[in-house]
Amino acid sequence: ADTKKIAVLPGDGIGPEVVAEALKVLKKTEELFGYKFETESGLFGGIAIDERGTPLPQDTLDICKRADAVLLGAVGGPKWDNNSKELRPETGLLGIRKALGLFSNIRPAVIFDCLKEASTLKPEVLEGTDLIVVRELTGGIYFGEKFRRETDNGQEAVDTCVYNVKEVERIVHQAFQIARTRRKKLCSVDKANVLETSRLWRETVNKIAPEYPDVELEHVLVDNCAMQLLRRPSSFDVIVTENMFGDILSDEAAMLTGSIGMLSSASLGEGSFGLYEPVHGSAPDIAGQGIANPIATILSVALMLKLSFGYQEAGDVIENAVKSVLDAGHRTGDIAVDKNKAIGTTAMGDLIVDAM
Amino acid sequence: ADTKKIAVLPGDGIGPEVVAEALKVLKKTEELFGYKFETESGLFGGIAIDERGTPLPQDTLDICKRADAVLLGAVGGPKWDNNSKELRPETGLLGIRKALGLFSNIRPAVIFDCLKEASTLKPEVLEGTDLIVVRELTGGIYFGEKFRRETDNGQEAVDTCVYNVKEVERIVHQAFQIARTRRKKLCSVDKANVLETSRLWRETVNKIAPEYPDVELEHVLVDNCAMQLLRRPSSFDVIVTENMFGDILSDEAAMLTGSIGMLSSASLGEGSFGLYEPVHGSAPDIAGQGIANPIATILSVALMLKLSFGYQEAGDVIENAVKSVLDAGHRTGDIAVDKNKAIGTTAMGDLIVDAM
Ligand SMILES: CC(C)[C@H](C(=O)O)[C@@H](O)C(=O)O
Ligand SMILES: CC(C)[C@H](C(=O)O)[C@@H](O)C(=O)O
Repeated sequence: ADTKKIAVLPGDGIGPEVVAEALKVLKKTEELFGYKFETESGLFGGIAIDERGTPLPQDTLDICKRADAVLLGAVGGPKWDNNSKELRPETGLLGIRKALGLFSNIRPAVIFDCLKEASTLKPEVLEGTDLIVVRELTGGIYFGEKFRRETDNGQEAVDTCVYNVKEVERIVHQAFQIARTRRKKLCSVDKANVLETSRLWRETVNKIAPEYPDVELEHVLVDNCAMQLLRRPSSFDVIVTENMFGDILSDEAAMLTGSIGMLSSASLGEGSFGLYEPVHGSAPDIAGQGIANPIATILSVALMLKLSFGYQEAGDVIENAVKSVLDAGHRTGDIAVDKNKAIGTTAMGDLIVDAM
Repeated sequence: ADTKKIAVLPGDGIGPEVVAEALKVLKKTEELFGYKFETESGLFGGIAIDERGTPLPQDTLDICKRADAVLLGAVGGPKWDNNSKELRPETGLLGIRKALGLFSNIRPAVIFDCLKEASTLKPEVLEGTDLIVVRELTGGIYFGEKFRRETDNGQEAVDTCVYNVKEVERIVHQAFQIARTRRKKLCSVDKANVLETSRLWRETVNKIAPEYPDVELEHVLVDNCAMQLLRRPSSFDVIVTENMFGDILSDEAAMLTGSIGMLSSASLGEGSFGLYEPVHGSAPDIAGQGIANPIATILSVALMLKLSFGYQEAGDVIENAVKSVLDAGHRTGDIAVDKNKAIGTTAMGDLIVDAM
């Protein structure tokens, strides 16, 4: 097989620790399947602010653009929270999404059998929950014009939420296609009773829907969706929505699984390029202690192998290895019932590599 | 006592049925306490569209403006869902909020002991949950400029989210004051890492905070709040946030209590005027069957007596009557474990009146 180039951005907090384990898994995949991966690391987020004065240095962006996929740890921490906008890690995150054209964020929310108890929802409600939130990632109120102006009522701030038909079409097509490979149900979320962008969104979804007669479509208002996720999580298959609503709903969906330390995500553009990262954050409170859970990052690698490289089997092998290690009762501190028996980041990574 | 004028807007679906029970409770309050209430009804929502060609007729607005408080049932239904914007019930709702200057929506999310099991959350997680979402109601992306324009990528839709300092100040002061009467914890929710309006929001909150040194303040990002509501609902006391985030979070909070048929809400402006309504919607599927739960509307009346008229004791009497009827095991269909034993709307109203 030809060499796949992977840009590696460990980032801040526990990022470097969990990424190190994911790289061990990649190496093992090379051995097992004869694939060739070439990794190139870049500074990104808080560490890039510290060392280079910007969260997204140009050479980091170049590394990503040269690569076939990006593996990201996590960015951010209290150290940079009060910085001005250009010197904040999140600004790097928004910048890299836009610069790489990653218009689609895929966030699976699945239940790990052994972690069912970790959810605050009743197990019988959670039973069978397996959904994906497809979030538009480069439009909407995140990227519209923002400014301040003086008024008689003091300063006034303005954010602009903008969507055009093409932006909606590409993400909705992708969501329909994903639904097709699953239980064939698509839930489009908007606030069409209030927002013009939502009305455009809904019209566009309805215009596209006839091309996917095999997929059952429902429209749900965002406030109602926030409720239904709690009421009947297992009834959802694929949820597609705009950037801001997707930010909120994908986090709500992740939390209700109780498995937030285990969830991976993919940000995709046109073609096979993608950025893969764990859903959890940089967890500065436990950084450097060797106790972080590397599973979400390892599963992000599995997702990369499948979605960007088409290495379906290798991805399955990683996912099964994770499952068998969990089934054998091994836990990092975040998911351990008996905290005294918890194992560390490296031990968890090693066990998964061994199980492959 | 002087006569209090109440505008009554029964609205659509189950609205008229539940409002009828609330009016019986009002009447009983007059008898018990010697208060005088004068009610005047108005057409509002879908029924106003049907009979008058607009969801908010001028004379309905006049009735409200003449009144000391408004009691609203519920509006909307499939019949009007595909109407153009001006002919939709929600447009009336947004219109009445703006016209009456109701900038603050107070949404308590409390657990009814006897309904704990109705929640999809584990009872031990819910234990002690008693929070209020204070939602800004007349600003933000709901009321900013909206339009479409043509671009090379097809039509483009634009919504504008606008907040000025004064709008933020008045709602935040109110939230601090409410927190003061409770557990003295305020959680301000924004998306300050992305939105300019959120940065203005947070600055304004921080500027006001020193006036309330007895209230503990935390800032939480909206995506994180959607998670924390699930993770640790009982740790919240008062949550204050802007219009769109408040729409989503107040519904999420309501649903996690499992008591959505029981929750009331108040929309307040300057002074003592307020609009009171149940949190649940018009439930067109069960309208006219006499099975709707009138408790949320009855509790909305209790809230009106307390917040708009200062009739604290009368409000307590109603709330206690509801509690005792529930404790005695009476249930409408929505909250009954044994559906065969469920009682109807009128029977529930009568029981509560008797218990007063
Ligand atoms: C850090 C922040 C800008 C970001 C977002 O809102 O997109 C994060 O919450 C996420 O979901 O990746
Ligand atoms: C019907 C709709 C316009 C309204 C809103 O979003 O404010 C409703 O969801 C509510 O919360 O009262």
